[in-house]
Amino acid sequence: MRESEIIKLFMSEIRDEILGDDAGYIRVDDRWILLTTDMLVWRTDVPDFMNPEDAGRKVVTMNVSDIAAMGGEAKTFFFSIGIPKDTSEDVLRGIARGIKEGSKRYGVRVVSGDTNDVKEIVVDGGALGISERLLLRKNAKPGDLVCVTGDLGRPLLALLLWLKGEDIPKDVLEKARDPIARIEEGKALSKIANAAIDISDGLSKELWEIARASNVRIIIDENSLPIHPTVKELTEDPVDIALASGEEFELIFTIPPNKVNEIPFEFTVIGRVERGNGVYLEGNGKMPMLGWEHFVGFGNAEH
Amino acid sequence: MRESEIIKLFMSEIRDEILGDDAGYIRVDDRWILLTTDMLVWRTDVPDFMNPEDAGRKVVTMNVSDIAAMGGEAKTFFFSIGIPKDTSEDVLRGIARGIKEGSKRYGVRVVSGDTNDVKEIVVDGGALGISERLLLRKNAKPGDLVCVTGDLGRPLLALLLWLKGEDIPKDVLEKARDPIARIEEGKALSKIANAAIDISDGLSKELWEIARASNVRIIIDENSLPIHPTVKELTEDPVDIALASGEEFELIFTIPPNKVNEIPFEFTVIGRVERGNGVYLEGNGKMPMLGWEHFVGFGNAEH
Repeated sequence: MRESEIIKLFMSEIRDEILGDDAGYIRVDDRWILLTTDMLVWRTDVPDFMNPEDAGRKVVTMNVSDIAAMGGEAKTFFFSIGIPKDTSEDVLRGIARGIKEGSKRYGVRVVSGDTNDVKEIVVDGGALGISERLLLRKNAKPGDLVCVTGDLGRPLLALLLWLKGEDIPKDVLEKARDPIARIEEGKALSKIANAAIDISDGLSKELWEIARASNVRIIIDENSLPIHPTVKELTEDPVDIALASGEEFELIFTIPPNKVNEIPFEFTVIGRVERGNGVYLEGNGKMPMLGWEHFVGFGNAEH
Repeated sequence: MRESEIIKLFMSEIRDEILGDDAGYIRVDDRWILLTTDMLVWRTDVPDFMNPEDAGRKVVTMNVSDIAAMGGEAKTFFFSIGIPKDTSEDVLRGIARGIKEGSKRYGVRVVSGDTNDVKEIVVDGGALGISERLLLRKNAKPGDLVCVTGDLGRPLLALLLWLKGEDIPKDVLEKARDPIARIEEGKALSKIANAAIDISDGLSKELWEIARASNVRIIIDENSLPIHPTVKELTEDPVDIALASGEEFELIFTIPPNKVNEIPFEFTVIGRVERGNGVYLEGNGKMPMLGWEHFVGFGNAEH
């Protein structure tokens, strides 16, 4: 079964739950407590341009990013680690250091840890956050502008160069090894935006998620995408790379035009929300739902 | 490295954290938010007298039990599941149903789920709870009585019979397949007890944890242990079995004598807390720190 089928199976068996947004949430007094977990599987999620510190740090980033995407402030990080008996102390120490660095960077406390004997390294992380107002995927409104933080394309470009055995430029490697969750941005957006999502699986997939959950049409201007200069320089299809690049941990958000001048950080307007459904490229038809598989499947990958 | 060494390594790298009690905790307004994760590894944690439903249910039990042991009320359950590509749909559906049953039994909502491709089945569960007063391992006081809920010995007896290929009596199998977390008991104790811990690793190990964390001496009367009748009947060393039997999910708690009549559920007084250190058996010297390994290593195990 594919992951989407497995998730469907679990959803059909476990009803009355909140699976779907970046994090689950419950109400406590006048706040929302947000909760997320995200598992890193060494074999598939840690290409060898990353070291154990990078991996540990990334588990924290993945999880606090989910909290940020819901408009929350991450407070604590927790983890369970599964490791084969023959794992070297260096690797373990590296993961632990990475987790510590990540938790320091994002100002979260590590409150629980658990280790288990598993046949391959898995690090299942989780984060708890607090928010006064939730940003949900389903709340995008016709008339909203669609915006994104940071730049796009570097993590996928790094992966493609790595698969081809080519050198990865330093500025590209930097984000691929150590993406940064948009904590402050998420907090600020919780007061003014309508919907948000973080880019784990690629811009196009995340936009389709918002369009579907909110029952709206999203129109994107491909010329406005904040594609990283090196991605433009090194690839023939920079727009496709930007649409497909995952693990960016940038935030996509939709916001009423009259709130845009209240945004206290740099961002790029990339499109707008209309009545209807689906995601479209301005003057260029439906946006394909691209992932990294698209490039690896049809590219020159030799791994 | 052994698990204890790995945990030590992580503790030494990740400072300023709260690792040690059953769950981590943070303060939100006038409450404590409790958080725990516990990973079930199919190969080592699911003997074949358990089915996938049992395993799913047990992941919920393990986690809500940690919340109960801290005096909290579990509110939500979350999980990440790692599964090999060839896992049958029946197994997956069974795990999902077990999770659903467990969450219904304990009145917790499933708020987040994540699936990943891993070489063997691992189900990493977690629970979030709320408490107004925490029960910590370090708060046992000289003068307290030491008490335990339920009965002891069945989970280990089931495991030993299974390892020897012998039939497991129905009443023994029942608790081994489907132990029940002491939710209501934990909530009630949060108002009156000083310290608590749940029995995941065996009575003796948990008592040593309390004695160490609280810097006290614990004296246990072995004649008072609530050993299950079938355990007494079928084994030559029922006290050792009771001291070593893990995954009981009973609560051990220490409580001032004048609060004992406020306990609204059945329990057994098994000992007392004194000044000093260590755990002792009344008139019988230091209590050994027994685990199931003791029996498997020196018994007739043929697996």
